Amino acid sequence: MSIDISDIPALARGCAVLGTGGGGDVRTGSLAAIRAIQTYGPVPLVELAELPGDALVVPLSGIGAPTVSHEMIHSEDEAKRIAEEIERIFGRPPAAVMSSEIGGSNGVAPVAWAAQLGLPLLDADAMGRAFPEVQMVSMYVAGLPADLVVMSDVVGNVVTIRPVDGLWSERLARAVCVAAGSTALMADYVLTAAQARGAVIEGTVTRALAIGRATEGAAEPLRALTERLGAARLITGKLTDVERRTTGGFVRGTATIEGTGDDRGRTLTLELQNENLVAVENGRPRAMVPDLITVVDTETAAAVQTEGLRYGQRVTVLAWPCDPLWRTPKGLETAGPRAFGYDLEYVPIEELVKGDPRG
Amino acid sequence: MSIDISDIPALARGCAVLGTGGGGDVRTGSLAAIRAIQTYGPVPLVELAELPGDALVVPLSGIGAPTVSHEMIHSEDEAKRIAEEIERIFGRPPAAVMSSEIGGSNGVAPVAWAAQLGLPLLDADAMGRAFPEVQMVSMYVAGLPADLVVMSDVVGNVVTIRPVDGLWSERLARAVCVAAGSTALMADYVLTAAQARGAVIEGTVTRALAIGRATEGAAEPLRALTERLGAARLITGKLTDVERRTTGGFVRGTATIEGTGDDRGRTLTLELQNENLVAVENGRPRAMVPDLITVVDTETAAAVQTEGLRYGQRVTVLAWPCDPLWRTPKGLETAGPRAFGYDLEYVPIEELVKGDPRG
Repeated sequence: MSIDISDIPALARGCAVLGTGGGGDVRTGSLAAIRAIQTYGPVPLVELAELPGDALVVPLSGIGAPTVSHEMIHSEDEAKRIAEEIERIFGRPPAAVMSSEIGGSNGVAPVAWAAQLGLPLLDADAMGRAFPEVQMVSMYVAGLPADLVVMSDVVGNVVTIRPVDGLWSERLARAVCVAAGSTALMADYVLTAAQARGAVIEGTVTRALAIGRATEGAAEPLRALTERLGAARLITGKLTDVERRTTGGFVRGTATIEGTGDDRGRTLTLELQNENLVAVENGRPRAMVPDLITVVDTETAAAVQTEGLRYGQRVTVLAWPCDPLWRTPKGLETAGPRAFGYDLEYVPIEELVKGDPRG
Repeated sequence: MSIDISDIPALARGCAVLGTGGGGDVRTGSLAAIRAIQTYGPVPLVELAELPGDALVVPLSGIGAPTVSHEMIHSEDEAKRIAEEIERIFGRPPAAVMSSEIGGSNGVAPVAWAAQLGLPLLDADAMGRAFPEVQMVSMYVAGLPADLVVMSDVVGNVVTIRPVDGLWSERLARAVCVAAGSTALMADYVLTAAQARGAVIEGTVTRALAIGRATEGAAEPLRALTERLGAARLITGKLTDVERRTTGGFVRGTATIEGTGDDRGRTLTLELQNENLVAVENGRPRAMVPDLITVVDTETAAAVQTEGLRYGQRVTVLAWPCDPLWRTPKGLETAGPRAFGYDLEYVPIEELVKGDPRG
């Protein structure tokens, strides 16, 4: 199958839902994808099994504060410069592009990068959602050495990092990103298809498309989306407080939702760090990272990204299980609540819902 | 000729004088050089004319705040990792090491790096002094494209930057350096010997050695040094105020010297940014970057680096002409007073001295 212009709106809706508030504004990625398909044609979507073992897979993502990437479109040359550098390093060109992060703009923009490079897009990503830090990828959890990062910025600089580990990869890539104006394009872990097996989350592009299509023409979009995701509804209400600040290449803050209708009298607070990380009610967590927490418009079921949170919005907060990879000890160590500085033992959303009569 | 352990003290004294307060504490570089010569033997000193045109010259320097590099010794593997990365990029190993900056520790430490790599040291550098920023090198002034920076830190990370220009090279390298703990080893502009001709400042290692030897056993060390340098004496007095702060990988501040003896009643203020940049008396500049301004101990004529400035020290401030390269329009644009944010038209030290009856 191929991804054509007509698929982009559904893909963007699905990626926004999987973005749990982050991953960059999907409009940016959509615009880039549409423009690139117009120029270069539809992008073939391939499965990992279709690629020869030594084929080079390039996981690409934008890195930076969504506040900035919202306003800055990646230049067309960024992907080409990264591909050139990879060919220089490996002695052969990349065979496929992969989204590092299916959530948010980073799930849609790889369509543009693949089109620009004349390469297929792999039906997989490295998160199954969005995460704010470079080392929070399936390859890291699978134990692949974080031995190469190639970055390019809108100015044309190319930076190659051979980090000693994933944490240094994050620290150095973030520093380069901030110096380059808080936004850059990045290839993290160039993989052979053989290495990618078991180290990426397969099927997530088609999953994002299916999520996006679930609400298309639905009589009750919120119900259609909730069922498609297998999500718990945490609250339906009104956004009464949003606090955000951009520091060190991140957006951090909180959002407060006061219940309406059946939920009147309840208050849910979301802790944000680019993404929605923890949902708290009466001092008790109701959902937490790495499980997915997404704010959607109650009427249309369209995801509201962190940057789009506005006082007075009528929203519903949904939460559902992450990929099993993130629930392994290494997965939780990498992207569990403590990895983000919350003193919380991870409890899966299914357990939290069981303990809650309203779940 | 070769540089042996017995040459290091003189080389260190000369490099400290050429450091104009910066370039890192020479004791750090000396320790590394002595240790490396003990392990690997003396380091051959070669002239540019002795190298074949396609021989790769690697200009190396420590980058970072002197406050930090003072306390942190470069690991032996940093130079090796950089050489490996260069061989990977160019398909052949480096042929010689060059000091990027003859002033301060960065003038002495290349002896260690050359010894560790089993390579000769080129009798040249890229500044003829010390400068705080990455793009302030002769290769940049000579118009060579700033197309490659390879950095390694004590942890073992290797970062390769292909910047669009020298200013981006500085911005990105600085960001990486700060992220890596404010100190790193860096190869800036890997050059062929053919490219190096006219684009480096030759003879500066032997010049540093000669400056260091000028005061050895001299009856009047200050006079011997002043004559060897052809320097003007700006003031002899006492350090009465030192203000320093480390921000963004730099040390910035001021030092005030009150005259004693013949200079009683006069006050000289030095503006610092890792190096001594401008000397001001009665609101008028008496010497300015890119000319060299060095604070020396009045009795021993040993240079006092920025980090060693202490209240009450008896010091003399010397100033002398920079390499002619820095007085060209591109040289002044790169490292003249305005490049450091001073609203001053550059006036050569010889002119300033002429206008001053005490010069």
